[in-house]
Amino acid sequence: MSVLIWIANLLRVLVLGAAAGGGFPQWNSNSDACNRARKGDVASQTQSSIAVTANGRNWYLCNASPDIRQQLNNNPALYPREGMRHSPVSGVVLTNADVDHIAGLLTLRESQPLNIFATKRVLTTLKKNSIFDVLNPDFVSRNEIFLGHPFVPKTPEGISLDLEFEAFSVPGKIALYLEDESADSNFGTVEGDTVGLRIANQLTGQYFFYIPGCASMPKQLAKRISGAPLVFFDGTLYEDAEMITRKEGHKTGNRMGHMSMSGPDGVIVALKELNITRKIFIHINNTNPVLLEDSRERKIVERADWEIAYDGMEISIEKPPE
Amino acid sequence: MSVLIWIANLLRVLVLGAAAGGGFPQWNSNSDACNRARKGDVASQTQSSIAVTANGRNWYLCNASPDIRQQLNNNPALYPREGMRHSPVSGVVLTNADVDHIAGLLTLRESQPLNIFATKRVLTTLKKNSIFDVLNPDFVSRNEIFLGHPFVPKTPEGISLDLEFEAFSVPGKIALYLEDESADSNFGTVEGDTVGLRIANQLTGQYFFYIPGCASMPKQLAKRISGAPLVFFDGTLYEDAEMITRKEGHKTGNRMGHMSMSGPDGVIVALKELNITRKIFIHINNTNPVLLEDSRERKIVERADWEIAYDGMEISIEKPPE
Repeated sequence: MSVLIWIANLLRVLVLGAAAGGGFPQWNSNSDACNRARKGDVASQTQSSIAVTANGRNWYLCNASPDIRQQLNNNPALYPREGMRHSPVSGVVLTNADVDHIAGLLTLRESQPLNIFATKRVLTTLKKNSIFDVLNPDFVSRNEIFLGHPFVPKTPEGISLDLEFEAFSVPGKIALYLEDESADSNFGTVEGDTVGLRIANQLTGQYFFYIPGCASMPKQLAKRISGAPLVFFDGTLYEDAEMITRKEGHKTGNRMGHMSMSGPDGVIVALKELNITRKIFIHINNTNPVLLEDSRERKIVERADWEIAYDGMEISIEKPPE
Repeated sequence: MSVLIWIANLLRVLVLGAAAGGGFPQWNSNSDACNRARKGDVASQTQSSIAVTANGRNWYLCNASPDIRQQLNNNPALYPREGMRHSPVSGVVLTNADVDHIAGLLTLRESQPLNIFATKRVLTTLKKNSIFDVLNPDFVSRNEIFLGHPFVPKTPEGISLDLEFEAFSVPGKIALYLEDESADSNFGTVEGDTVGLRIANQLTGQYFFYIPGCASMPKQLAKRISGAPLVFFDGTLYEDAEMITRKEGHKTGNRMGHMSMSGPDGVIVALKELNITRKIFIHINNTNPVLLEDSRERKIVERADWEIAYDGMEISIEKPPE
């Protein structure tokens, strides 16, 4: 049997979902912003997930959101193409065990070969929840990620994807439903609960970073992402207390493990001098006014050289200079 | 404080999702039918769930499908109306622990008051899966259903809904991910794993049946639903072996706990003489040709006086004669 491998020398990203947990609109939010989204006055956004490919044919998902079925239906690149059962989706890499990042795994059932990658902490959560056993181990493998050790997944059939992932720990918070209030001020959070990803075409060296949740910017992390051609970064909140001031919640961003965009400790300031070519906010909460194209905050963010991700956004990463 | 209660003397059903697990199209199915749905040549259908109301304002869901966020977005009757956080959805009644019936609970988070009703068997599954703890018990109560004991849920604020539910055991099968192959030929299935629901307006007596999963038709069940004004019934497969003959699976309907529509032991024959005014198939698998309006099987089913549910279908149950 001969296998045709098309080496496309590319690295392409498809934003499947740009919103944080709950999506935009959120089912029980009666805010002006959510009602504008319901009316179609501003664009709706599903929950946070991206798809990446280095060969133009086989895709890996970073996180599997509860909206995954709708997201797969919305993106023809992810439609099955061969035989009776098929998917261009070869696997999923998880960055934490939040509901908005793992619930979509339940949709990837139906005896489809698939590889899942996650840290031990996240794999343990999947193992403890028998509902994920709906992913038949005869078809779906679960693979441990070791921080700082790049891995090159293949398709379940063993074909190289030319994609290289490296996971690194970022400041974060354990998933809400796993919080242990008696543990410590950090609710039992340990290393491996939240990771960021460096994603590369292993043949060409093209790369970018995907960091949809991050609680602060230690020097080591700033150094890691310095000079990158592209960074997707946690854009949950514009202001740390916006859920409280808007009467839509009782938690700060800090409490939820998210830096806010604005302010002296915010993302915009933290990444300003890092010489990153393209900076894109993703995982944006429905209370964040940057979702509204006509908002003051959207203009401020864009003037600071940031883009706001949206469902269906497609990006090709430039080849690095020879 | 005075509370205005609008007694509307109605019983209304909204079909949120008409398809079985996987939906139509199913993410990894390359069948002609699924590709027609992707092209918009036939209507897509989300996964099985209905909403019911007896007052026109407060709704109960029967099952919470993985597509629930899309379903709530598609139905303006279920949009929030008051304050900053609100939902017309007061609760959820579960008929089994299948992924396509419970995964949507994970979307009903965000500190929204809600009541969940299920049998002990289903509640035990929720309890064993910590991911469902994302539904904060301060807001979301879990209530046990006792077979044959009608219950009248209130809104979480204690307002009567005039809705009465009665759950009864139907032949079924334990959820796939809970199967115990070593147990017996029935994979460890026991009473309470699958129920049907009789849903009524307790003031007017209007009622109907919702039975989205059923493996056979014992005499007692036939007697129970005889003469009903409306029955929604398990329409998973047209023929028992269709997933195998279409090369889209290796299980029969019988193996999965579903009667098929056709054949001497099928639903159409079983309900033919039961004097039911309106019969509607729901929970329809993407392999079932009745999803295609131009199919031979669709015509056969319709000629046998059955309707095929579809997303967005609305039904008002007639008042019984005085």
